[in-house]
Amino acid sequence: DIRRSGFITIGYRGSYTLGRDSQTDAKFRRVARIMVCGKTSLAKEVFGDTLNESRDPDRPPERYTSRYYLKFTFLEQAFDKLADAGFHMVACNSTGTCAFAHDQTDDKIWTSYTEYVFYRE
Amino acid sequence: DIRRSGFITIGYRGSYTLGRDSQTDAKFRRVARIMVCGKTSLAKEVFGDTLNESRDPDRPPERYTSRYYLKFTFLEQAFDKLADAGFHMVACNSTGTCAFAHDQTDDKIWTSYTEYVFYRE
Amino acid sequence: DIRRSGFITIGYRGSYTLGRDSQTDAKFRRVARIMVCGKTSLAKEVFGDTLNESRDPDRPPERYTSRYYLKFTFLEQAFDKLADAGFHMVACNSTGTCAFAHDQTDDKIWTSYTEYVFYRE
Amino acid sequence: DIRRSGFITIGYRGSYTLGRDSQTDAKFRRVARIMVCGKTSLAKEVFGDTLNESRDPDRPPERYTSRYYLKFTFLEQAFDKLADAGFHMVACNSTGTCAFAHDQTDDKIWTSYTEYVFYRE
Amino acid sequence: DIRRSGFITIGYRGSYTLGRDSQTDAKFRRVARIMVCGKTSLAKEVFGDTLNESRDPDRPPERYTSRYYLKFTFLEQAFDKLADAGFHMVACNSTGTCAFAHDQTDDKIWTSYTEYVFYRE
Repeated sequence: DIRRSGFITIGYRGSYTLGRDSQTDAKFRRVARIMVCGKTSLAKEVFGDTLNESRDPDRPPERYTSRYYLKFTFLEQAFDKLADAGFHMVACNSTGTCAFAHDQTDDKIWTSYTEYVFYRE
Repeated sequence: DIRRSGFITIGYRGSYTLGRDSQTDAKFRRVARIMVCGKTSLAKEVFGDTLNESRDPDRPPERYTSRYYLKFTFLEQAFDKLADAGFHMVACNSTGTCAFAHDQTDDKIWTSYTEYVFYRE
Repeated sequence: DIRRSGFITIGYRGSYTLGRDSQTDAKFRRVARIMVCGKTSLAKEVFGDTLNESRDPDRPPERYTSRYYLKFTFLEQAFDKLADAGFHMVACNSTGTCAFAHDQTDDKIWTSYTEYVFYRE
Repeated sequence: DIRRSGFITIGYRGSYTLGRDSQTDAKFRRVARIMVCGKTSLAKEVFGDTLNESRDPDRPPERYTSRYYLKFTFLEQAFDKLADAGFHMVACNSTGTCAFAHDQTDDKIWTSYTEYVFYRE
Repeated sequence: DIRRSGFITIGYRGSYTLGRDSQTDAKFRRVARIMVCGKTSLAKEVFGDTLNESRDPDRPPERYTSRYYLKFTFLEQAFDKLADAGFHMVACNSTGTCAFAHDQTDDKIWTSYTEYVFYRE
């Protein structure tokens, strides 16, 4: 009997350009890819065919992964699927840094990593 | 029957000038624009005519968006509307970075992105 | 009947000098000013005469503000007043950045902004 | 009757050297000093003789402090004492920055400030 | 009777390369080592033989450590073991900074420290 309870973490790396002109224009949240970490059996149960396992193939059910990602890029869609399966968001955190500037435009790229931790009894 | 339950995320980019003289003067929180992410039907239900959909028009109800924003700029007003509709704040996070300096004033602009995650059963 | 329920956010900008000599000495938390954001009626109810409204005068009760601040500078004193009025802390976040160095001492000033979100049913 | 209910905040400044060689070696958490903020009567009740009041002497019970610190440096030991006295952790946050490099070694010192907020009804 | 209740903190230092070419490619979460802080008796009870005590040997049960680490590197596996033993995640936080660039590649290494606080009644 594969365990029902467990943790799943959803994470994404955001990027935001801090150009001189762009400084005033409010940039919307951009999510390139939603990553999924946790027991492979739970990830498959919650996300089914919207899950991409190509970067961590052939993982037995009771094993863990941090290399699955989703085929859609709306965070709240992932949150809703987790809640539908009985998971609750228990914590989240975020960290970011300012990276190199693009040669031509002198814009600075600000990269962030944000994750949301879900748990099902 | 459009689902009642779901997540809505409220986010904003703050900016704060770190000029030499301004260092001691406590700057109040400045919110240029409040962004709304989640299922379009939920966003419309909670914020109604205070919602600006111009940057993501013609989204069917069951779809998701991260390009809606509000016509007012008080965060607590958005929080109160969400609570009135039965949503609870379940998490929040914030990340920030120091960007380029203005040519003339040599002040550094510190940009931050903060988001608040709400959920309704 | 002015609504009892609502959110109040407490925030402050901290500063911390990263001088060469000071690196080992543990600096205590320094809070220059505690800012209060939310509905003006709720802020007045909780903080009464310890509230400074000078930077946002003549706000009608049902309106919102993010320019009130307190006459004392102990965070926990503000937290206790909120709890006494039936508010609960539901989230907090913090972001910080390293700013310019002082000309003479070459110390770097590290500025942070931390906020605590409270809610009353 | 000195009030039983209230908030206590535990905080520490961490430091972590980002040397070229040290980049791969996982550094354990180092806590130089655990700072205690809140009402002096509550701090004394929870931490008793493990509390150092030397930097804020002669504080009447009902007053607040942010300059007490502990004689031990294990965070979880402080958390356990708070829980034993009926306090619950309600939130935590952390912020950090990269400071100047040491002249000789060119290692960068990364300083962080983390705090944990506890509350007793 | 060794106390059952207490706090355990799980932490890890992540690293992420911000090379020019790598900027678009979404990097998965990389956890080099999972560190365990708290009372040694609790850490041993929860993690048993998956715990590495080599960097803090001969700690009596009632003492505390911040130098244990795990033999596996999946965070959710650690979370699941803690939940199985009756612990609940009560908070988490994260902080990060941009460090020096590699001489050859000029990529910047972004180091982060994230921790998750668990508590058992």
